[in-house]
Amino acid sequence: MIVAFNLLLLSLVKHQVAPMVSEKEKYLTKEQQLIALVQSKVGNRYVGDDCARLPGNLLVTSDTLVERTHFILVKEEARLKDLGWKSMAVSLSDIAAMAGVPRYALIAITMPENLSRQHFAYLYQGLIDCSKRYKTDIVGGDITKGTVLSITITVIGEANERGCLLRGGAKPGDVVVVTGDFGASKAGLKMLLDDKSLKQIQGNIAVDDIDGHHFSNCLASHNRPLPRLEESWALVNETGSRGALMDASDGLADALAQISRASEVGMTIDLQKVPIKGETAVVAKMYGEAPLDWALYGGEDYQLVACLPEKTWQTWLNRNKDKAIPFQAIGRATSSGKVELMLGNEQGPELDLRRCFQHIA
Amino acid sequence: MIVAFNLLLLSLVKHQVAPMVSEKEKYLTKEQQLIALVQSKVGNRYVGDDCARLPGNLLVTSDTLVERTHFILVKEEARLKDLGWKSMAVSLSDIAAMAGVPRYALIAITMPENLSRQHFAYLYQGLIDCSKRYKTDIVGGDITKGTVLSITITVIGEANERGCLLRGGAKPGDVVVVTGDFGASKAGLKMLLDDKSLKQIQGNIAVDDIDGHHFSNCLASHNRPLPRLEESWALVNETGSRGALMDASDGLADALAQISRASEVGMTIDLQKVPIKGETAVVAKMYGEAPLDWALYGGEDYQLVACLPEKTWQTWLNRNKDKAIPFQAIGRATSSGKVELMLGNEQGPELDLRRCFQHIA
Repeated sequence: MIVAFNLLLLSLVKHQVAPMVSEKEKYLTKEQQLIALVQSKVGNRYVGDDCARLPGNLLVTSDTLVERTHFILVKEEARLKDLGWKSMAVSLSDIAAMAGVPRYALIAITMPENLSRQHFAYLYQGLIDCSKRYKTDIVGGDITKGTVLSITITVIGEANERGCLLRGGAKPGDVVVVTGDFGASKAGLKMLLDDKSLKQIQGNIAVDDIDGHHFSNCLASHNRPLPRLEESWALVNETGSRGALMDASDGLADALAQISRASEVGMTIDLQKVPIKGETAVVAKMYGEAPLDWALYGGEDYQLVACLPEKTWQTWLNRNKDKAIPFQAIGRATSSGKVELMLGNEQGPELDLRRCFQHIA
Repeated sequence: MIVAFNLLLLSLVKHQVAPMVSEKEKYLTKEQQLIALVQSKVGNRYVGDDCARLPGNLLVTSDTLVERTHFILVKEEARLKDLGWKSMAVSLSDIAAMAGVPRYALIAITMPENLSRQHFAYLYQGLIDCSKRYKTDIVGGDITKGTVLSITITVIGEANERGCLLRGGAKPGDVVVVTGDFGASKAGLKMLLDDKSLKQIQGNIAVDDIDGHHFSNCLASHNRPLPRLEESWALVNETGSRGALMDASDGLADALAQISRASEVGMTIDLQKVPIKGETAVVAKMYGEAPLDWALYGGEDYQLVACLPEKTWQTWLNRNKDKAIPFQAIGRATSSGKVELMLGNEQGPELDLRRCFQHIA
């Protein structure tokens, strides 16, 4: 569940990208109306974050991945296993975004007739691999037939007893921190959609060795995202329920804007501190695009964005002088009410919400 | 969730019915293989009933309804509201089938672009109407775009503290009881798919008045099924966890066979005692079909089938001599290991599992 009712418009079929932009813009506007409509109709205390938090410390979230909207169906063992992994990871990431621990998953699959039993087994293996990695029991679901492959996963988890971090918990003065790196998933998607790159990878040409970069990391970021469950658990153990948290599934820019909006704070972000891997930058340049744009607007990195009190952050850092902690600071929450992007001490580009992940191909 | 992983092949588009039979037979065989595959892969103590029963007395179930597989999309206010109602009712019926009480629902909708905001609002109104009727809070979900309308509903409920009735709890000597009546949904489907009947209804021609029958009941059974939550709750209050229960979503014959298999008992069912309404019989005759066939194999009635000890049943009846209780007896569990159909004291037809709901159009 992304903003309880949000859009998930991920990897689009390459040939659809160009002609669909204006059509999609129109569509998304309608979708945004739908979200508002649903929120007004069902308005209750559960709707509005990455998961619904129910009595008994329960967290629940549902996410759907649909063929042609979120992925291209490639009937190869590795790709189907990746799809299974990713479908599960997307829902688990919503539990991470509330600093919870996942317990159970239900998997509803709509199967097209052109998918064989063996294809299905590959897909399911990916689902199981990811659920096992994150100690989540698959307890049920549904199998129906349909014209396209569709996977809806519901995950039930538990919030940490120390607290539950929502989007609305940031305060001016908080440190803005993130896990991992950004833009890598977009780089992976570009490589996947580009026949030449893909053939290089499939042909085992050592794409990893160009300038010492490991391009397979980009593909892995796109195909097998790792929900940041351990990281958010570590965070909530430090800060309890005092802070804000969400996953950056729709891009870093979207996450910053959402936390800013829900918490009614501004932010100053130093883009030079936003972690971007060298290989992501190389791929971006290969396509004539700016690595920072991919980091801000690319989406699907499934990293975490959090705000926590300066004092908590410093204590955490001091206690771990000799070892890394899974977050790095990229800015600070302010009382300006606006997300301001800096490049070191210089003014950076304007945050452009129209470019956020759900608005672009 | 129907048998945790089961098939839900409901109302088919009329023109698809004839040409698809053999194709579907093939398909379903594959689907059954898939179910077996999933069960062997995820095999745990949760899989195998209408809901997964999780620690903390929780019941969870997911069901998907897909356009062209489960319903024909008719973009009219009443039909869209009906579709919303039915989608919710199907999942709530799984909670009823475990004698639980539903609490929360998550709704994942895949929207085709040809559905307007107003259409969506009608659909959602139906979902809300049904969830409110059964005191279930809609707490989240997902909205994605796709080529066909698809609705996956996850319901989280609580089992009754007195017990949870599974499919495997019947014992020889138990009384087999059912709620409501059977075959009405199939009659409603036939009327819906038959332009002439539909036009009569739409034109407000008094189809209800033919021979004093109320044919709108058939349509209501098909379009707005009522999950038997109060009835199963009443049952478990009588019998605790001593008995068996499931919903007859895939037809009475399927439910009898499933309970028989899971409980390792036989059954003797008196078909003359299976409740079939007069209007259902009239519609069946109109189409040259046997009302009993519709009752046994028609499906989508969302009634309950239960087994409970003779003594409990008699006590319940005796305490309610002056008023109706929501179940009626249709037979008895035996140690024969086989479901035997009787017509009073005469041998009835063989139970034909190949004709069960998921196998026929």
